[in-house]
Amino acid sequence: MDIAVLGTGSVGRTLARGLAGVGHTVVVGTRDPAQTRRREDWLAADDITLDTFAEAAAGGEVIVNATNGAASLSVLGDAGVDNLAGKVILDVANPLDFSQGFPPTLAVKDTDSLAEQIQRAFPEARVVKSLNTMNAAVMVAPDSVGDGDTSVFVAGDDDAARAVVVGLLRDLGWRDIIDLGDLSGARGVEMWLPLWLRLMTTVGGATFNLRIVR
Amino acid sequence: MDIAVLGTGSVGRTLARGLAGVGHTVVVGTRDPAQTRRREDWLAADDITLDTFAEAAAGGEVIVNATNGAASLSVLGDAGVDNLAGKVILDVANPLDFSQGFPPTLAVKDTDSLAEQIQRAFPEARVVKSLNTMNAAVMVAPDSVGDGDTSVFVAGDDDAARAVVVGLLRDLGWRDIIDLGDLSGARGVEMWLPLWLRLMTTVGGATFNLRIVR
Repeated sequence: MDIAVLGTGSVGRTLARGLAGVGHTVVVGTRDPAQTRRREDWLAADDITLDTFAEAAAGGEVIVNATNGAASLSVLGDAGVDNLAGKVILDVANPLDFSQGFPPTLAVKDTDSLAEQIQRAFPEARVVKSLNTMNAAVMVAPDSVGDGDTSVFVAGDDDAARAVVVGLLRDLGWRDIIDLGDLSGARGVEMWLPLWLRLMTTVGGATFNLRIVR
Repeated sequence: MDIAVLGTGSVGRTLARGLAGVGHTVVVGTRDPAQTRRREDWLAADDITLDTFAEAAAGGEVIVNATNGAASLSVLGDAGVDNLAGKVILDVANPLDFSQGFPPTLAVKDTDSLAEQIQRAFPEARVVKSLNTMNAAVMVAPDSVGDGDTSVFVAGDDDAARAVVVGLLRDLGWRDIIDLGDLSGARGVEMWLPLWLRLMTTVGGATFNLRIVR
């Protein structure tokens, strides 16, 4: 598939490499491609193109929101409402607010979620929340934790869009994919973050994940 | 140990039976013991005494808050500040607000938790949050889920109190006990509830739990 990954932080870089590594054509969107190219040489090794948010989104069948949660709505706005219409937005971001230091608080929670905010802002896009419950390295290498059968969640209002994301997750090696149904399921997975952050200290690193045992 | 379980709902009843079953002396506290006795015959089968909140708390070394989260501060107030002073309060409650129907929202979250509210209201008690992350039946029978190695969390400001609770958890059969440190760790485990509730629908029942795989 043609996939646009928006964001050049560690999540965007890791997902871009991971998705390209399993055969997808990935374009990474950034605010200023020339500046990003001067700053980073990580794209050279891979067959990944760097482009503006809007140009990347225009060519993508799936748009991955790998931006900072606080910047997501703004970046998606830069990508352009027309470039997002009808597209699957795979939202892996978390609405973390670091303004008061660590641990961050959640900028939206409980009765709403970042994913739902994005869906409301871009009603013609098809938002699917997934992969936000773990570290970037684990997203693209589920076998790196335990025996590789930890869990990943999917939530979104559009059945076909959820199926597209499930397909990408399988490409990345995920086996225990839990379909939470409509996009309000994003509330629970975003509210998992405070426990995840606490566990990062307890476990001593980010290479862990939860498994739903039933 | 002498344990007072406050609350006669399914959580209180299940925990009372479970803790008595592994050899502890359990008194269950309720608002009106005579009325509870008329309504329920569940105590007859076990060696469990029913008493008022205050009388139960007075005799307990450990006080289990197994009340509805919305009622917890009020019930603990009825139990009496003097009867709680110095005691371990094992807080298993969740601050669920059902006033707008299902799913419930959280009455406190993110920058605070029910457990911390209880600690502030009863500063001489030693509050430990645990077991709130699962169904009551699983609390007392960890082997009922998978191969019995799912995870349970402990958070509390007092090291000795956390150790007492860890001992009770081991009595109940828990092996993967994750110490989250001070009581602010309660925020994460209380915010797990929205995902737990959603999973109850997805999984089709409450007999499941999470395992932290690292």
